[in-house]
Amino acid sequence: MKEFELINRYFTGRGITRRDVDLGIGDDCALISVPENCQLAVTTDTLVEGVHFFADIPPRALGHRILAVNLSDLAAMGAEPAWVSIGLTLSDVDQQWLEEFTEGMHDIAEYYNVQIIGGDTTQGPLTITVCAKGIIPKGKALTRSGAKNGDWVYVTGPLGDSGLAIEARKQGWDVAPEHLKSATERFNFPSPRVAAGQVLRGIATSAIDISDGLLADLSHILRQSGVGAVIHADKVPTSDALNSLDNDDVRLKLALAYGDDYELLYTVSDDNKNLLETKLQQYGVEPVCIGQIINNDGKLELLYHNQTWPLPDIGFEHFS
Amino acid sequence: MKEFELINRYFTGRGITRRDVDLGIGDDCALISVPENCQLAVTTDTLVEGVHFFADIPPRALGHRILAVNLSDLAAMGAEPAWVSIGLTLSDVDQQWLEEFTEGMHDIAEYYNVQIIGGDTTQGPLTITVCAKGIIPKGKALTRSGAKNGDWVYVTGPLGDSGLAIEARKQGWDVAPEHLKSATERFNFPSPRVAAGQVLRGIATSAIDISDGLLADLSHILRQSGVGAVIHADKVPTSDALNSLDNDDVRLKLALAYGDDYELLYTVSDDNKNLLETKLQQYGVEPVCIGQIINNDGKLELLYHNQTWPLPDIGFEHFS
Repeated sequence: MKEFELINRYFTGRGITRRDVDLGIGDDCALISVPENCQLAVTTDTLVEGVHFFADIPPRALGHRILAVNLSDLAAMGAEPAWVSIGLTLSDVDQQWLEEFTEGMHDIAEYYNVQIIGGDTTQGPLTITVCAKGIIPKGKALTRSGAKNGDWVYVTGPLGDSGLAIEARKQGWDVAPEHLKSATERFNFPSPRVAAGQVLRGIATSAIDISDGLLADLSHILRQSGVGAVIHADKVPTSDALNSLDNDDVRLKLALAYGDDYELLYTVSDDNKNLLETKLQQYGVEPVCIGQIINNDGKLELLYHNQTWPLPDIGFEHFS
Repeated sequence: MKEFELINRYFTGRGITRRDVDLGIGDDCALISVPENCQLAVTTDTLVEGVHFFADIPPRALGHRILAVNLSDLAAMGAEPAWVSIGLTLSDVDQQWLEEFTEGMHDIAEYYNVQIIGGDTTQGPLTITVCAKGIIPKGKALTRSGAKNGDWVYVTGPLGDSGLAIEARKQGWDVAPEHLKSATERFNFPSPRVAAGQVLRGIATSAIDISDGLLADLSHILRQSGVGAVIHADKVPTSDALNSLDNDDVRLKLALAYGDDYELLYTVSDDNKNLLETKLQQYGVEPVCIGQIINNDGKLELLYHNQTWPLPDIGFEHFS
């Protein structure tokens, strides 16, 4: 199967059609009408085989995941996801693989009302880059720079499951099958917190998605807001799967310093704390307060059961 | 050098700043204000080492080229380039290489008033995906589907040089050094026809950029417009470098069926022919008429000095 046949079979005419897309796949560019009084939010994320995922990842999961990690960035700004472009580099054409991969992609796109508007399909080592675009009422975006002294620090859900899935496999840990299965499912099919992000608009003072690890991503907020924070490691939500690890060090490291779960981390003023909790709960998202922003020269202090706990090496960076 | 240091050194705060970019590199998303009464044009192109370029391509050329091929798609719609996002996958961090690569990228971005608004930097086999975004007055885009019976077929400049550069190297052809040099320069630093594309708005009936080869790209227009065409191969403009090849077959194949030069192919009605020629010449672009659109059941007829000439295998497709 050649390039254009591939595009026609797996992309053209599949997935949803948005009314604001004036021209979709099939010309030199797609054409979009961005609603008035809205800003365009744009983000790009790449997944590389052997770096971001094992070569045997189920193709449906990979198709889901590449969109999910991009939609998560839109969620962290409070944006409404709308359109994605896909740079898909494949070593060869495996039709079964492609069918499942694109099904995973179309399913999550449809769920979030996102249209695939174009891209490029090339031959080479398996690499996928998505550029996702969303809309947001002018001036309402959540940024990393708005956290203030006294704000409370929250996360939208349990952390460390993706790290557990990866490290258990890499290091051959003895984890109960049901725990390994649920953690792997979490890695394979992350849920970007799109609704939560939109609820946070106008209430939260800052937000970021946890892609590199809780402490690494929090440190971006602290630096860009010019503040510090105290985090209670024992308040960070974790799953039964993660709780099944009996080594505190390992468990905390996965929860605090591993990324890939795509929950949101956000801050809210004391005045808006109750409003935020009520609103999020209406959307089925449990607000979990894990600490507070303080003026302490930008330091990040970690406590575990109210005792100082050493900061783990925080967060993944390429080329480290 | 780690990922964030790399981004800070080579991207953040470098290049131009557009007033319509409300938030650039450094948050979960960039934020853009698209002007009222404009559509957003979006395109994505990927370059893979060993597939789209030799590993020893000068890094400055690669930085130029990845933006140029994307801006060329915007040009083909008549859009004004504005913002780009970059997915950059690098096997390792070579600071000299990165300095030159990003200089090439920033130079062409500045020339076309384009801001780099974000991206993702990851480790893996050298692959670059750019998503370029431009703006266009509502309803004024040039598409592939507007060519009509009797329209004239034009190109914006000489074709076949990039093919000459690549094939001469691959096949060890005996080409004079000055010709090889000028052809290679053309491959390394293609000039997207951004001004010409905007001039064509409201005058041309269809347009496409020649990335896969003249005949392949023309066939997209023919299929999407439901028409056929007669092309005079001897009228297709070629450079002194290409003309130095004395084999007609080879020369014509490079001019007609090789891509990578990034000229525009467009059609214009007989009524607008003179207006178009005058306007383009004002912008220093020589309009070259190479044939005509006809109603012949969608066929593409090729003549060489008014004799029927066999169609070469047309155009590059991945996975062929």
